[in-house]
Amino acid sequence: MSGTLYGLGVGPGDPDLITLKALKILERAPVIAYPAPETGDSLARSIAAPHIPNGRVEIVIRTPMVPGKFPAHDVYDRYAAEIEARLDADEDVAVLCEGDPFLYGSFMYLLSRLSAKHSVKVVPGVSSLGACAASVGVPLVSRNQVLTVLPGPLEEAELEAHIQSSPAVAIMKVGRHLRKICRVLDRLGLMEHAQYIERATMPEQRVLALRDVPRDGAPYFSMILVRHGETEAGV
Amino acid sequence: MSGTLYGLGVGPGDPDLITLKALKILERAPVIAYPAPETGDSLARSIAAPHIPNGRVEIVIRTPMVPGKFPAHDVYDRYAAEIEARLDADEDVAVLCEGDPFLYGSFMYLLSRLSAKHSVKVVPGVSSLGACAASVGVPLVSRNQVLTVLPGPLEEAELEAHIQSSPAVAIMKVGRHLRKICRVLDRLGLMEHAQYIERATMPEQRVLALRDVPRDGAPYFSMILVRHGETEAGV
Repeated sequence: MSGTLYGLGVGPGDPDLITLKALKILERAPVIAYPAPETGDSLARSIAAPHIPNGRVEIVIRTPMVPGKFPAHDVYDRYAAEIEARLDADEDVAVLCEGDPFLYGSFMYLLSRLSAKHSVKVVPGVSSLGACAASVGVPLVSRNQVLTVLPGPLEEAELEAHIQSSPAVAIMKVGRHLRKICRVLDRLGLMEHAQYIERATMPEQRVLALRDVPRDGAPYFSMILVRHGETEAGV
Repeated sequence: MSGTLYGLGVGPGDPDLITLKALKILERAPVIAYPAPETGDSLARSIAAPHIPNGRVEIVIRTPMVPGKFPAHDVYDRYAAEIEARLDADEDVAVLCEGDPFLYGSFMYLLSRLSAKHSVKVVPGVSSLGACAASVGVPLVSRNQVLTVLPGPLEEAELEAHIQSSPAVAIMKVGRHLRKICRVLDRLGLMEHAQYIERATMPEQRVLALRDVPRDGAPYFSMILVRHGETEAGV
């Protein structure tokens, strides 16, 4: 027998945006695991904190956060081995994932290492896309429009081409790419159509017109939404 | 005083994929409303059914589903007026929305009519995007890739251009557009990279390689996921 590895979407920030399904798994999994920076707290754990029962084994997946770099293979090899030992002992392991596990989530690094030999189930979560749109109060995309989701680290020319060809754009992982993104939107004449959202659905949430955001930096977990096609006005 | 209009994401299908936040609002809202076809059951209501307390006033927003047409203005004018009467009587109204209210949701038709004079709050939900990826067991998008979300009704040339320029594509509202979409993917040599998902997370869920799907039609609530960039293999 072997335990099941769960990728649990815990939602974008508000602990009440967790699903019943994730809650039920959290209540019975003997082992939980979650990503964290090399030092400091885990965002995923802090989101799920009110729902984590006492007495669970906790595996903290500490990965160096180097701008522009994805984690080294050996880091995930090591954590996958630690998790695998639990699965081999017939214990279920619930991995907490911010937002949705399969939208740019680091859960894939465990999936690729463990899915061949173990049962893996993914529980989708509320993603930051829907959360940011809800915080702004404007649909992400409507009718038969294209929605393009862009990571902020993309090269300037690539960002520009995609933004130009899509009426609805969500730019994620803004962080230190804020100035570059603003340059592109200025050039395309779209600055007035851009909204900035930081830490959506958390107590520290900030929603601003992008033109009002100081350009000296943004947290990694921030997003820019741009709508420049037909909108809902008068629908 | 006036009641609050809630747009409640109820998730993609499995009733357990509703959020705690939506549940809490459902427990106390005296009036619920939901979209439904001209005859027959409401999908949004069937998803939320186990969580709807007895004795609620229910407003069924029946709209004609004409292929290629969006609902006529007067239909939503009428339902918005009915809902507004409840808000004016200081009653909260919870509108049930499949998936996430702001990802192609019809909630925008109520929002645009009622937000000027009433308090409106949107509760994001688990969208079909994350749900379909979870059902297939493969990330929607990873690392610094672009994700493009395309409505199936788009013209063939537009679908082709967007699919070609994005390593990760989700095509929604497949329905009667299946044959056209398959033609595009065949032409681009991407048929082997496409997965088909129908009624994700519901008991009737079907997940198939797109090449194995009969091309004579699909339900409206079906999706095609295409990955043709760098994937997780060996990550």
